[in-house]
Amino acid sequence: MEDNQNSTAILLVSCPDKVGIVAEMTKLFGKYNGNIINLEQHVDAEENMFFMRLEWQLEGFSITMEDFNIELKKTAEEFNMNWEINYSRHRCRMAILVSKQAHCLYDILSRYESGEWNVEIPLVISNHRDLEPIVKRHGLEFHHIPISKENKAEQEEKEIALLREHNIDLIVLARYMQILSAGLVDQYPNRIINIHHSFLPAFPGARPYHSAYERGVKIIGATSHYVTTELDAGPIIDQDVTRVSHTESIKDFVHKGKDLEKIVLARAIRLHLQNKILVCNNKTIVFK
Amino acid sequence: MEDNQNSTAILLVSCPDKVGIVAEMTKLFGKYNGNIINLEQHVDAEENMFFMRLEWQLEGFSITMEDFNIELKKTAEEFNMNWEINYSRHRCRMAILVSKQAHCLYDILSRYESGEWNVEIPLVISNHRDLEPIVKRHGLEFHHIPISKENKAEQEEKEIALLREHNIDLIVLARYMQILSAGLVDQYPNRIINIHHSFLPAFPGARPYHSAYERGVKIIGATSHYVTTELDAGPIIDQDVTRVSHTESIKDFVHKGKDLEKIVLARAIRLHLQNKILVCNNKTIVFK
Amino acid sequence: MEDNQNSTAILLVSCPDKVGIVAEMTKLFGKYNGNIINLEQHVDAEENMFFMRLEWQLEGFSITMEDFNIELKKTAEEFNMNWEINYSRHRCRMAILVSKQAHCLYDILSRYESGEWNVEIPLVISNHRDLEPIVKRHGLEFHHIPISKENKAEQEEKEIALLREHNIDLIVLARYMQILSAGLVDQYPNRIINIHHSFLPAFPGARPYHSAYERGVKIIGATSHYVTTELDAGPIIDQDVTRVSHTESIKDFVHKGKDLEKIVLARAIRLHLQNKILVCNNKTIVFK
Amino acid sequence: MEDNQNSTAILLVSCPDKVGIVAEMTKLFGKYNGNIINLEQHVDAEENMFFMRLEWQLEGFSITMEDFNIELKKTAEEFNMNWEINYSRHRCRMAILVSKQAHCLYDILSRYESGEWNVEIPLVISNHRDLEPIVKRHGLEFHHIPISKENKAEQEEKEIALLREHNIDLIVLARYMQILSAGLVDQYPNRIINIHHSFLPAFPGARPYHSAYERGVKIIGATSHYVTTELDAGPIIDQDVTRVSHTESIKDFVHKGKDLEKIVLARAIRLHLQNKILVCNNKTIVFK
Repeated sequence: MEDNQNSTAILLVSCPDKVGIVAEMTKLFGKYNGNIINLEQHVDAEENMFFMRLEWQLEGFSITMEDFNIELKKTAEEFNMNWEINYSRHRCRMAILVSKQAHCLYDILSRYESGEWNVEIPLVISNHRDLEPIVKRHGLEFHHIPISKENKAEQEEKEIALLREHNIDLIVLARYMQILSAGLVDQYPNRIINIHHSFLPAFPGARPYHSAYERGVKIIGATSHYVTTELDAGPIIDQDVTRVSHTESIKDFVHKGKDLEKIVLARAIRLHLQNKILVCNNKTIVFK
Repeated sequence: MEDNQNSTAILLVSCPDKVGIVAEMTKLFGKYNGNIINLEQHVDAEENMFFMRLEWQLEGFSITMEDFNIELKKTAEEFNMNWEINYSRHRCRMAILVSKQAHCLYDILSRYESGEWNVEIPLVISNHRDLEPIVKRHGLEFHHIPISKENKAEQEEKEIALLREHNIDLIVLARYMQILSAGLVDQYPNRIINIHHSFLPAFPGARPYHSAYERGVKIIGATSHYVTTELDAGPIIDQDVTRVSHTESIKDFVHKGKDLEKIVLARAIRLHLQNKILVCNNKTIVFK
Repeated sequence: MEDNQNSTAILLVSCPDKVGIVAEMTKLFGKYNGNIINLEQHVDAEENMFFMRLEWQLEGFSITMEDFNIELKKTAEEFNMNWEINYSRHRCRMAILVSKQAHCLYDILSRYESGEWNVEIPLVISNHRDLEPIVKRHGLEFHHIPISKENKAEQEEKEIALLREHNIDLIVLARYMQILSAGLVDQYPNRIINIHHSFLPAFPGARPYHSAYERGVKIIGATSHYVTTELDAGPIIDQDVTRVSHTESIKDFVHKGKDLEKIVLARAIRLHLQNKILVCNNKTIVFK
Repeated sequence: MEDNQNSTAILLVSCPDKVGIVAEMTKLFGKYNGNIINLEQHVDAEENMFFMRLEWQLEGFSITMEDFNIELKKTAEEFNMNWEINYSRHRCRMAILVSKQAHCLYDILSRYESGEWNVEIPLVISNHRDLEPIVKRHGLEFHHIPISKENKAEQEEKEIALLREHNIDLIVLARYMQILSAGLVDQYPNRIINIHHSFLPAFPGARPYHSAYERGVKIIGATSHYVTTELDAGPIIDQDVTRVSHTESIKDFVHKGKDLEKIVLARAIRLHLQNKILVCNNKTIVFK
């Protein structure tokens, strides 16, 4: 038997805007005594689109989720909605992909061990062996899948097999210095989060700190985003910045940047796990 | 006849939290074909309070506001609501109180002249004559009401008379270096905005930049808040900060601070004019 | 007779790095009893370049500036230095170029009138008449020089003539929506400051807020820089940013951005007037 | 034999301001062919104090440090200087004190393992056993020294004995929830760094996030400072802040604050290890 106490469900909705959507939806929840503890909606007037995140308590909800899904489908069809329901009690299964840089991995594993996130990390994959000891020390599976131009296709097949085998919901590229091919990306739409070490769209691609230094910017940044097939061009989830000055070398930029990267990546993971992100037109709606 | 095109009304609500409030409210608007263009609600779980800002289009609304108020009153009573309705077409009447410092006044007058705000400024009051030329140049009334310990009560009476005569909705203390007495404050609850030149609650009272310098802080700030009878202790509307270093003198703090003050004050005025602020327990709910 | 009290001179130096430069320079000032009140040096290890800003009191300096220049020239040749001396008592002559947007102009004129800067503004030039009343109200000369594709060359000639006639030291583009041609730019190297309404190098060129909105960034910015012949690619002086969210429209971006623009532009002007900026390799050294 | 290659020494100086200090000092280094790679000085005009950080290469320095110390002493006496010399090759010995919260400890150990700092961590001390497994996993000594009102004096004696035995240079309180008594503090002046989870001087003492929430601030912060005998009143090294809103609970404040705390603490440790901090009048001069 399921324990519904303190358990909530989260409904994410996007559809063309129309009068009365909120009323219709809230009426539906009222009908089954669903206690809405959070409702946030947003209308994009330019695109004439409606977005909503609605969280309600499962305790006291007087209809089975199976039956509710059937009812909801009717309303959804009427308004031409995209929708999904997630459960707060669901423990997301997250894979981490890394290369040689340790700072984001350290940060993720610390949060994992602290129980900061409702998440399971069944495995870490890397194209190098450098970070294996850190991963193993935390008692996690480590898979070494080296990638070269020649073997990329077949190695990615291995990765996909592993990800499937472990029922992975979310892939985190924690400074993974490889470009994923469409074959992998397309299987996890809005389910792969990358951290890029610049304030996108400035300085996409390789060596952004070098480019920032070269250009003489006074502020550097980091950007977390969902991965799409176009490099560093996916929907931005979060960004942050820090001041730099002429007194700082590229090494200083890299050092400062690492602290940005790990925080901005962790914030994106948290938002994803809380089902607070909707994607539309390559942009994110990030609910509070 | 009134022109309702593009005109909206904004309902602000606070009440004890209860299942079904949103549904009940949205149903009410649906009944009269009210097109909700923005709904934001917030539940304070600790205080068990519900807050909502609901903006709807007056065009197409199939009931007079008079009759709607009567209907709304019923629902409000049921849920024990505090509520108010404001209209986007209402031009708020704002008085400015200044002393000798010009930077906030300049900034407000520039925005006023640019038409940035839907506001009318019928008068500026000051306890000094220094800023009179700036005010006059903009074609505004300037009232010189010098205040000393001895004449404070009677001079404030004059101020109150002027504010009433001009039907003032909102009073802005743009670096007005006098403490208002309860007699004035109590007549304009959550209708007097002050800018304090520190990151409250650090450094309340006089000479906060000197205190910040003395303490050796690495960041200074400014705070806009509603005025209550307790000095610098009213509900905070907005704050912002900027970095300082040992290389900067008190003069530099003051200089940097001025830029913070004018921006943080302007942001608070804007939020107030957009009816985006609710006050509860000496704290603000600031809708987006 | 000149009044040297509280008057200082500022020496800016750049040259290939070498052991003993600081010692040699400070020895030279010690020889004539020059009281150094501020010395800041920076070595760019990658470029092997040395930069220094040295400010000393003219009172008590036991050599005429004429003779000192001769002595300094010798040291400068020995170390292959670029150098210049400026005087704190010099009142910089600044021209402002605007189009239709008023916010930066308002901010500059307010600071000017407040005496915040040691500066003289002999004239404002614009390709439109919109801001003429604001300029005239401050008692400043306003020159309307409309520019089209056809007349650009000859109109810029007029501008150059005006700038020369008024002995302009510094040109500020306060949201001047025209691209200056090389003919003008080359005559004022590192003497033309522009404010660009994005976080460069992201979104150069026209309509950066629209591009930022389109891309879905979570932070927008503004950049002040010296103008070079390459559009929006000159040495960056200062930048600042502010958070945005999906709830904000392009209009909101523009509104928030205006506050950034005026502050970031004012900071650049201030740094320039204080002789705190050195340019090398299209990057700025900004002394404290 | 010592290896001087790439090795530098750092001289920190503070004294009453006087004409010619820099010249005198740089002359001294020139005399022995000391290649100054960084010189930063600061004059506090109000206090009439002079501060300097001078870093020079030991390679090619034509005098032994022993003899140089003797020469320097003469100059120091002449100018009434406080001074100290540190060596970049010196590996600082750092002790960490923790209670139950893990986030700062995780962050420090990650940086330690990554070799980010030139530091040795011989031991971690805690009044609780909770974090022992994390410490042991990194192969470090863990000492459990529980502290109560009754045993405080004797337990601190044990701590002092341990710190001495391990030749500790720097003590880091990584969310150590005990107040150190003067007996310990006085033995490590400007050698104990604490992280306080508020924007000091706002909210000193216990439960600052609760107080911040109660007050309704719109920005929260963290402060790293040297510990003095007065609680949360020592010289501030660094501070940082992050925005909060009415939508966030105390739990959210705590969560966001943890990310601030670990970064602000790590920055302070780094500055200390680089010998970039001078303390004067309970304030820090933080060189670049």
